[in-house]
Amino acid sequence: MEKEIISWIYEAAERIKTGLGEALKVDQKNGRTDLVTNVDKEVQNFLVEKIKAYDSTAKILGEENGLDQTAIDCGRVFVIDPIDGTLNFVMQQENFCIMIAVYEDGVGQLGFIYDVMRDELFWGGAKVGKVFFNKKEISAPENKHLSQGLIGMNAALYRQNLYHAQEIGNTSMGIRILGCAGLEFIAMIKGTQIGYVSVLSPWDYAAGKIMMDQLGMPSWGADKQPLTFRKREFFIGGTQATMTDIQAFHKGKH
Amino acid sequence: MEKEIISWIYEAAERIKTGLGEALKVDQKNGRTDLVTNVDKEVQNFLVEKIKAYDSTAKILGEENGLDQTAIDCGRVFVIDPIDGTLNFVMQQENFCIMIAVYEDGVGQLGFIYDVMRDELFWGGAKVGKVFFNKKEISAPENKHLSQGLIGMNAALYRQNLYHAQEIGNTSMGIRILGCAGLEFIAMIKGTQIGYVSVLSPWDYAAGKIMMDQLGMPSWGADKQPLTFRKREFFIGGTQATMTDIQAFHKGKH
Repeated sequence: MEKEIISWIYEAAERIKTGLGEALKVDQKNGRTDLVTNVDKEVQNFLVEKIKAYDSTAKILGEENGLDQTAIDCGRVFVIDPIDGTLNFVMQQENFCIMIAVYEDGVGQLGFIYDVMRDELFWGGAKVGKVFFNKKEISAPENKHLSQGLIGMNAALYRQNLYHAQEIGNTSMGIRILGCAGLEFIAMIKGTQIGYVSVLSPWDYAAGKIMMDQLGMPSWGADKQPLTFRKREFFIGGTQATMTDIQAFHKGKH
Repeated sequence: MEKEIISWIYEAAERIKTGLGEALKVDQKNGRTDLVTNVDKEVQNFLVEKIKAYDSTAKILGEENGLDQTAIDCGRVFVIDPIDGTLNFVMQQENFCIMIAVYEDGVGQLGFIYDVMRDELFWGGAKVGKVFFNKKEISAPENKHLSQGLIGMNAALYRQNLYHAQEIGNTSMGIRILGCAGLEFIAMIKGTQIGYVSVLSPWDYAAGKIMMDQLGMPSWGADKQPLTFRKREFFIGGTQATMTDIQAFHKGKH
């Protein structure tokens, strides 16, 4: 299965790069900074066709084109985000990812995050028992505490100091705001950031969570409850030591 | 002169990459997140030697090794930052720059910003009348308003809402926090971000300002006063339209 998915991702990336050279049609979704382009929709349709040809019984949970209500917990579900970081895609023509995840009866099997313009593919999960950076297997990053590393942050959470975001940031070595969940997951998997505090939809975290699970890095909601895969929700992920440190804020121990 | 400086930068980059493969000696300067490594100091010494061999009368203003008090306005002054984004260098082994600027009697002549790990050199200024990305001349980015683009931001300014940082961020399409002034200047020069709001030392802005001047993009302090090159100070830079929009906040027109 993984060979097919990787081939779809590379073909989707070529379509995205072609789209960058043409006039983008940009529409707003929920507000002036929540954008979708013709390329997001076309690439999602491309991925949906490939998935259906590969497994006609699979269900699909995706950001665009009305696929955002599929339940994760029954049968094989592909979770897809054709362009994660659409605002970066439109404004920067870089710093965006393609993300695909495969769940079976709610259990994560394979996750894929592809940084298109840097040509960096991170993929793996329980089905293969490993995580890869391109063709090279990677090991779990060092189990650093919150005070020992950089942490990815959502700007609105940080500004409003929701879920102790500012205390968490101040305890870390510094915050980074990249505008692309996929890049934040890549940074955690590589070990260049020790955590990520945000508000995410299922297609934002589905692929990254599978790879983090494989590497022994937890992710959960504000009260340590499992992520629901049903709505946009508070998300924390990181090294085990960082997650313990952050949980202490949420228990009011700081 | 530019050929020599570019050759120094590439040689310094090799030294930095070699340093990344060895055990870093990391020290704190002004607090636990303000770091300096043996590589910062060694690379600054290397650049100082090269500059002195090239022009024994030139003065040097630099972050490390006690060169931080040189005045900019008399004779030829090289402003150097051997590793801009030392925290990223230590934590991420990427997302840091080498920066060199040449001023003559206080007038910017040449600026160089090199993103070492991406191998992207931006350089130019009044002396050559152009700005280059590697070997290709680049033109001024589109003159976008604040509401039309992404803006780079300093985390502490944003958190504390100093200098209207949050209103500025909310008016933009979104904020980005990269932890490296050089990368923020590169984003402005490329046109992928429309501005940058921060608190910077002279070696943080000296090179970028020269290239922005050449491209017709202003930079100044909070009250539109010239940057002093004498201390860590509030900095705003961006497209002309963005700078007019931001100035309106500081005049209390919003």
